[in-house]
Amino acid sequence: MKTPFVTDLNSEQSITTFFLVHEKEIRNTREGKPYLRLELGDRSGTIEARMWDQFDVAIRDINRDDFVKVQARVEIYKNRPQLSLQQLRLAKPEEIDLADFLLHTKEDVGKLYAQLLEYANAIANPWLKKLVTGIVSNPEIAAKYKRAPAAKVMHHAYLGGLIEHVVSLCGLAKQVAALYPELDVDLLLTAAILHDVGKLDELCYDRAIAYTVEGQLLGHIMMEFETVSKAMDALEGFPPALKTVVQHLLISHHGQYEFGSPKLPMIREALVFHYLDDLDSKLAAARAALALDSGEPEWSTYSGALGRKFLRLDQFLKDFALTPPDKK
Amino acid sequence: MKTPFVTDLNSEQSITTFFLVHEKEIRNTREGKPYLRLELGDRSGTIEARMWDQFDVAIRDINRDDFVKVQARVEIYKNRPQLSLQQLRLAKPEEIDLADFLLHTKEDVGKLYAQLLEYANAIANPWLKKLVTGIVSNPEIAAKYKRAPAAKVMHHAYLGGLIEHVVSLCGLAKQVAALYPELDVDLLLTAAILHDVGKLDELCYDRAIAYTVEGQLLGHIMMEFETVSKAMDALEGFPPALKTVVQHLLISHHGQYEFGSPKLPMIREALVFHYLDDLDSKLAAARAALALDSGEPEWSTYSGALGRKFLRLDQFLKDFALTPPDKK
Amino acid sequence: MKTPFVTDLNSEQSITTFFLVHEKEIRNTREGKPYLRLELGDRSGTIEARMWDQFDVAIRDINRDDFVKVQARVEIYKNRPQLSLQQLRLAKPEEIDLADFLLHTKEDVGKLYAQLLEYANAIANPWLKKLVTGIVSNPEIAAKYKRAPAAKVMHHAYLGGLIEHVVSLCGLAKQVAALYPELDVDLLLTAAILHDVGKLDELCYDRAIAYTVEGQLLGHIMMEFETVSKAMDALEGFPPALKTVVQHLLISHHGQYEFGSPKLPMIREALVFHYLDDLDSKLAAARAALALDSGEPEWSTYSGALGRKFLRLDQFLKDFALTPPDKK
Amino acid sequence: MKTPFVTDLNSEQSITTFFLVHEKEIRNTREGKPYLRLELGDRSGTIEARMWDQFDVAIRDINRDDFVKVQARVEIYKNRPQLSLQQLRLAKPEEIDLADFLLHTKEDVGKLYAQLLEYANAIANPWLKKLVTGIVSNPEIAAKYKRAPAAKVMHHAYLGGLIEHVVSLCGLAKQVAALYPELDVDLLLTAAILHDVGKLDELCYDRAIAYTVEGQLLGHIMMEFETVSKAMDALEGFPPALKTVVQHLLISHHGQYEFGSPKLPMIREALVFHYLDDLDSKLAAARAALALDSGEPEWSTYSGALGRKFLRLDQFLKDFALTPPDKK
Amino acid sequence: MKTPFVTDLNSEQSITTFFLVHEKEIRNTREGKPYLRLELGDRSGTIEARMWDQFDVAIRDINRDDFVKVQARVEIYKNRPQLSLQQLRLAKPEEIDLADFLLHTKEDVGKLYAQLLEYANAIANPWLKKLVTGIVSNPEIAAKYKRAPAAKVMHHAYLGGLIEHVVSLCGLAKQVAALYPELDVDLLLTAAILHDVGKLDELCYDRAIAYTVEGQLLGHIMMEFETVSKAMDALEGFPPALKTVVQHLLISHHGQYEFGSPKLPMIREALVFHYLDDLDSKLAAARAALALDSGEPEWSTYSGALGRKFLRLDQFLKDFALTPPDKK
Amino acid sequence: MKTPFVTDLNSEQSITTFFLVHEKEIRNTREGKPYLRLELGDRSGTIEARMWDQFDVAIRDINRDDFVKVQARVEIYKNRPQLSLQQLRLAKPEEIDLADFLLHTKEDVGKLYAQLLEYANAIANPWLKKLVTGIVSNPEIAAKYKRAPAAKVMHHAYLGGLIEHVVSLCGLAKQVAALYPELDVDLLLTAAILHDVGKLDELCYDRAIAYTVEGQLLGHIMMEFETVSKAMDALEGFPPALKTVVQHLLISHHGQYEFGSPKLPMIREALVFHYLDDLDSKLAAARAALALDSGEPEWSTYSGALGRKFLRLDQFLKDFALTPPDKK
Repeated sequence: MKTPFVTDLNSEQSITTFFLVHEKEIRNTREGKPYLRLELGDRSGTIEARMWDQFDVAIRDINRDDFVKVQARVEIYKNRPQLSLQQLRLAKPEEIDLADFLLHTKEDVGKLYAQLLEYANAIANPWLKKLVTGIVSNPEIAAKYKRAPAAKVMHHAYLGGLIEHVVSLCGLAKQVAALYPELDVDLLLTAAILHDVGKLDELCYDRAIAYTVEGQLLGHIMMEFETVSKAMDALEGFPPALKTVVQHLLISHHGQYEFGSPKLPMIREALVFHYLDDLDSKLAAARAALALDSGEPEWSTYSGALGRKFLRLDQFLKDFALTPPDKK
Repeated sequence: MKTPFVTDLNSEQSITTFFLVHEKEIRNTREGKPYLRLELGDRSGTIEARMWDQFDVAIRDINRDDFVKVQARVEIYKNRPQLSLQQLRLAKPEEIDLADFLLHTKEDVGKLYAQLLEYANAIANPWLKKLVTGIVSNPEIAAKYKRAPAAKVMHHAYLGGLIEHVVSLCGLAKQVAALYPELDVDLLLTAAILHDVGKLDELCYDRAIAYTVEGQLLGHIMMEFETVSKAMDALEGFPPALKTVVQHLLISHHGQYEFGSPKLPMIREALVFHYLDDLDSKLAAARAALALDSGEPEWSTYSGALGRKFLRLDQFLKDFALTPPDKK
Repeated sequence: MKTPFVTDLNSEQSITTFFLVHEKEIRNTREGKPYLRLELGDRSGTIEARMWDQFDVAIRDINRDDFVKVQARVEIYKNRPQLSLQQLRLAKPEEIDLADFLLHTKEDVGKLYAQLLEYANAIANPWLKKLVTGIVSNPEIAAKYKRAPAAKVMHHAYLGGLIEHVVSLCGLAKQVAALYPELDVDLLLTAAILHDVGKLDELCYDRAIAYTVEGQLLGHIMMEFETVSKAMDALEGFPPALKTVVQHLLISHHGQYEFGSPKLPMIREALVFHYLDDLDSKLAAARAALALDSGEPEWSTYSGALGRKFLRLDQFLKDFALTPPDKK
Repeated sequence: MKTPFVTDLNSEQSITTFFLVHEKEIRNTREGKPYLRLELGDRSGTIEARMWDQFDVAIRDINRDDFVKVQARVEIYKNRPQLSLQQLRLAKPEEIDLADFLLHTKEDVGKLYAQLLEYANAIANPWLKKLVTGIVSNPEIAAKYKRAPAAKVMHHAYLGGLIEHVVSLCGLAKQVAALYPELDVDLLLTAAILHDVGKLDELCYDRAIAYTVEGQLLGHIMMEFETVSKAMDALEGFPPALKTVVQHLLISHHGQYEFGSPKLPMIREALVFHYLDDLDSKLAAARAALALDSGEPEWSTYSGALGRKFLRLDQFLKDFALTPPDKK
Repeated sequence: MKTPFVTDLNSEQSITTFFLVHEKEIRNTREGKPYLRLELGDRSGTIEARMWDQFDVAIRDINRDDFVKVQARVEIYKNRPQLSLQQLRLAKPEEIDLADFLLHTKEDVGKLYAQLLEYANAIANPWLKKLVTGIVSNPEIAAKYKRAPAAKVMHHAYLGGLIEHVVSLCGLAKQVAALYPELDVDLLLTAAILHDVGKLDELCYDRAIAYTVEGQLLGHIMMEFETVSKAMDALEGFPPALKTVVQHLLISHHGQYEFGSPKLPMIREALVFHYLDDLDSKLAAARAALALDSGEPEWSTYSGALGRKFLRLDQFLKDFALTPPDKK
Repeated sequence: MKTPFVTDLNSEQSITTFFLVHEKEIRNTREGKPYLRLELGDRSGTIEARMWDQFDVAIRDINRDDFVKVQARVEIYKNRPQLSLQQLRLAKPEEIDLADFLLHTKEDVGKLYAQLLEYANAIANPWLKKLVTGIVSNPEIAAKYKRAPAAKVMHHAYLGGLIEHVVSLCGLAKQVAALYPELDVDLLLTAAILHDVGKLDELCYDRAIAYTVEGQLLGHIMMEFETVSKAMDALEGFPPALKTVVQHLLISHHGQYEFGSPKLPMIREALVFHYLDDLDSKLAAARAALALDSGEPEWSTYSGALGRKFLRLDQFLKDFALTPPDKK
């Protein structure tokens, strides 16, 4: 593990460590002297860096999205911390531990993917099964599916977060369909597996999690609407009414216009799926808030996504164990 | 079954049928002549009625909430339909079918109640178990619990609707807790069983579903906050922090301030329970909208509670069966 | 012109006239006797009709969306007007004037379409020109484009309303681009011509204006997103970034999430086009409100779409002519 | 008065002063060396402090909520100011002026409490009088009532603020009831005196103003609903309808769902009381904003609670005295 | 009192009574035969009327805003009630009781006006006193002030309602200023007396309460802003800063942008006055709702202005008298 | 050009440069020693400054709104940057370049004003022409009109910004009126030229852009409502109805209550003008966001006014030129 991380930097400290280059440019001082300005980062955050001399070599070899090794001093400039670089070179691949730059799910992605395939194969309706398995077993999509985060900051914001979220939703879908016979489990599973495939390309997550320009301009709902629609068109004979139903499931899953769904759920499965998706996402956001130290022993940090903080139940109930050990 | 119902009345029709008396008063015409004014109803709606002569006997015997047999003519007065009564007498018990006056769940209430007790007894935490079983097995409460509707119009708006809703929620709670080990199933079950007990007294549902004055002024959240708090106080040694947690589960279950929850859910179980309650209620509202004939073969009636209509999936997909028979 | 129209019907009147069949079904009275129930309409509105006897022949020949000739009596039933049918037969084509059933733009659709083609051909960018002209000169689309209304009730709610709206927007686009050199006129024209093509299939308007099921479940933004995306994919070499830009123009044109745009305009042309579209639509809604008699000489009818009524400026200024005749 | 306050600290400054200990813990550096971490504060704010050596004695004697004397240097660490402690000892009681740690009303709390009792005793209705006087003359409650602030930040956010607010409301209630004979002054006084008693336990205000966990999870409306309900139950024979009315007054006093009132005022006294409470609170917020120096001579600081700043009328009207001296 | 009122009309009834002419016009039938169309009304509402023959004399003598005597039959036409006129003549002044056409305050307007003058004369600031007394003692304004309603439907919607509202506010202003020494009573009285003078011309209320075109296009806030500004300009030497303050009081009195105030209150007196105005208006709306019979003995009618119904406290508390007679 | 600007200051830097004095006061240290406190600024921002010794001369000569030359050191005090002044004197007029203190339109104001007069003279309606030309050719107003910014921060926030905005709107008005014959171009031009004249006095912009107290308390809509109303009153014979129409155009131009328009547009020209004003303002806001460097090559800075960032189309489309050079 690299040391220190961006969030560990103290003023007037001298450091030697590795960073990812987020931005690189040459600027001029007022006196016309060129200098190098970089934005550097790791999984904990980003910081500006400037190099005033002897950066000619660095210009040639180093580009955005490269990993670098730096020797630098931590300073404050215009009230913001920055690095004054003394040495800078490309890092060697063997020096870099990708886990220092991107957080990762703690679960086994291979197992999660196997579960996903199992859910896809359990779909009874032949058209939906063909559609869903075709998409998730496409090697290019599968590779991204195993890696994509579910969001940039809201919930499951780490590599593998998307598949973790989707497998969880498949489990919920199965259970809920078992309780309400009026619901079609195939539609719920289809919604669960396909409702966020647009995120595979809405976000980029090679070396950091960010939005692509397409993601910003279109959003994952539109992107998956297009790719899934094409996939249905490619299946000869796919019933047109069923296509409309699948499209409706995708575009209505945010549940409200102001959350970017151009249509309210008007099919029972779409209504129910919206609640399941919300439940799993919001619970993950609560979990993330509780995972951080807020300074207040009984409370989580404030979750911007949920507009509140959460109680640490065990701290509040103290010695009192909610479920007696012999009953667990 | 009585005939006609209020919604079947046509102008200038003469009828002989049974009604429930919602209101009764003696008024005077402008000329000072007294007449009898009643509000009569059945499960389909209500209508005003007037009797101009020979109502002295009726005055003596008939009161609000009595069932009556009437012979009348349907007229229009000041632009509203009304009955002009020719004959009026108390109905005999054997003439009345309560089902003509209040809709009832199609499920077996005895079985539902047995399931409820089973869920209550499955609570592992001794304090919560004592609290919940104490409430639902109190004979007075049990009697109401078996009969209460879950709402006046929004969802499960029929006798037995509340217990149907609660048993459904217990099932959901069990399933969801199994999927998320971070959730305490005892808290979820407690929330499910107690979150609407205030409705036992917020609504009256002897002969029609309506709000009590207390229900209007306080609402079921405040009413159950009081009764459940008292029940916890009555259990000597009930942990104060656990009491606060149960209170929070009750008052936060509407999830948003604008839906009458004075606090947002700040415990994970409260957050999750809010979604489960919303899912079961809104799905029931969709079910109710689909149960009515809208005139448009592919669409349900418009659900005011949900602000939309719902698609009849089977009609839209037509001959195409979503799940092939051999896969069911 | 047929006479009377639905809005001319008076109670207890006997009529002989033509209608469009919106719905047809056989129902049974309580006594089990079958009767025919129709929903009939013309361009002014719709009315229920019932036929009690000798409707067997009608059952065979008449279906939804047929035109019929009826002889009937106007009655009131359950407080709603209805027709009691005495005679009913299929209308002969030569008896029907379609203009009695659907309102039509007062402009010459042929000329409007020629203008549209001219605007499309004036696009300088070769990819956009190829895309736009390809779509509007497709015979199937052209036929619909000449006929489609722009909305069911909000604005331009008559046959030919869409093309009238689009040609007006092209004129605005040209003018505005001339005033702001920073704007690309090609993108504005592309947005103008394609932004509502989804309405060609969101609405059906053969014999009355209504939403299709696809239109209800998906909406015109999603429908045109799909068709225009396919059209771009079909043009080999179409630049992917330009495709994203066109998609963004389509999905952001409602300008706000709550009006069903899943993205806010983030390109200047998208921002400007949103205002132009709003201006033309809302002005048309004001125009429509002013075209109706409100009973108040100085005011239009209340426009539900705009939440207000409009002043008749000429009435309010009275004898005083705003622009003196010699200055016009 | 102590010097400096937290908000007076400058970087690289050496200080000797008093603080309240908000948190205390022993942590380890990365190298495993233990150090002391404190959160220190006074009435102006809080700051982190660290002590690296010779803190063994401090560990033994000093705890959360103790007052301490420190000698320290102001530094910046991870971009946040902090104190590096050189000396640390318990403060002696005689060294501490509590007013440095908590703001206090400028009025005489004894007099305010006497006025409160007078208003309570002026209630004519025997049940309400018994209820209100019973609560405010309970010694434990009285002690808190004399000390509690009315809020953490919004208005009257200082010790004694609550009783100041309540006495002011009693005065308003009397006056307004005199002007509107339709209003029952007893209900208004009851509302005034009891509407915020939940704040006695929603906030803690021993050495700083903060929310208790119960306060966060339940809020003062629910807390007083419970305690006042119990107090009514304890008065044998208290009329049930009157109990409902008092409960409604308490829960509706925020006036709107989105401000945490689960019911809108549906009794005239509840409606009026809501306006009086709002008037007194918001005027106090304006007063607080005007009490601070904004840098702009004619304007107060910006009030977050009210979303605006206030004009200093005397500055704006300048030499011009609004009310001439001889008319005052 | 006339009989019947518009709201008393039944279909197929023959009536002889008096109405006010709201509109009059000659129209032609489809066959080209002229007929007379009137809109007639009384204090309870309006109804359309048609006269088919022998209306030539009526045309000459009768105009909008005349009172007429009619003999007519109540019919239904195009699904709306209307009168078919058989006889029509101008009413004689002695036949008309104005109270049948407009509701009137129950208080003595002369006394209210005297109180208003007294409040105006009690203003100590010489400029404000000159301004306010100058306006209210202007004979033309005084005449309107004694007659104007405070609103069309919301509150005090009857002749004299405005002065009743204003005198009530002056009383509140005096009391509240006595309780809060920081408030300037002169500004509060000025606001109370002038804040609605725009309503003198926003509404017309000669024979019915309605908006003028100016009222619709500008609103009373703008109208009084103009007239009061002019009145200040006409007072030579009126301090400009004081003028700005008075203008701010007028335009901010609705308290929120969405209620038509272009500025939020930013002076304490403006803030307080807004609450007093709201309190008096909303209490009047509650009073109006309670004055009507809702059919439910314990509840008022639903107040659209307030979005709720109100409890009849005396009914709910029943035999129990809130304030014991000997304590009143 | 002066150097450095406020936004260029670094800690511990020594500078010699020019500033505008925003505020000046003498304060005392805790020890009672007087010192000078100034607020200094230039077009880039403001900073506090303190002078501890030998400032007696400066007190005499220097006042708010003077330009000064300073020699100072950049320090951090209470966590905010400030200047410690060593030398301070009045700047000589020839030392100051006003452009260092206020941003200015890049267009030629003389030409813009000539265009404005031309548009005003093109108004055909004699009353509107007299009104508009009278206002804009008034020398005092003309001088302000040539100088005023259109806003403090939202759009056209520089000297000459208002006239730039208005001339642009006149061009739009002409074009749009040509496309919609139902619109009266005179009303649109009148709205364009007068709709922001209140900003001439709402803002002050001699040496920096700020709100006047009148501007804060009343806003430009009210201020121009007053001045334009007076101007109409001063034109003998100006038709009263036309006056109301002009007033309505002014007060409705923000289009929504929540943006400070006390009336919604209820005349077609008012509706259309609102859209044109919004289009030109928002496009200017987008332009301003795109003019700043965001660090992200494909995106503008985030526009707070619009709640989004904008795409740099040329960067995103890269080598691909939207409009081919030969087609331009």
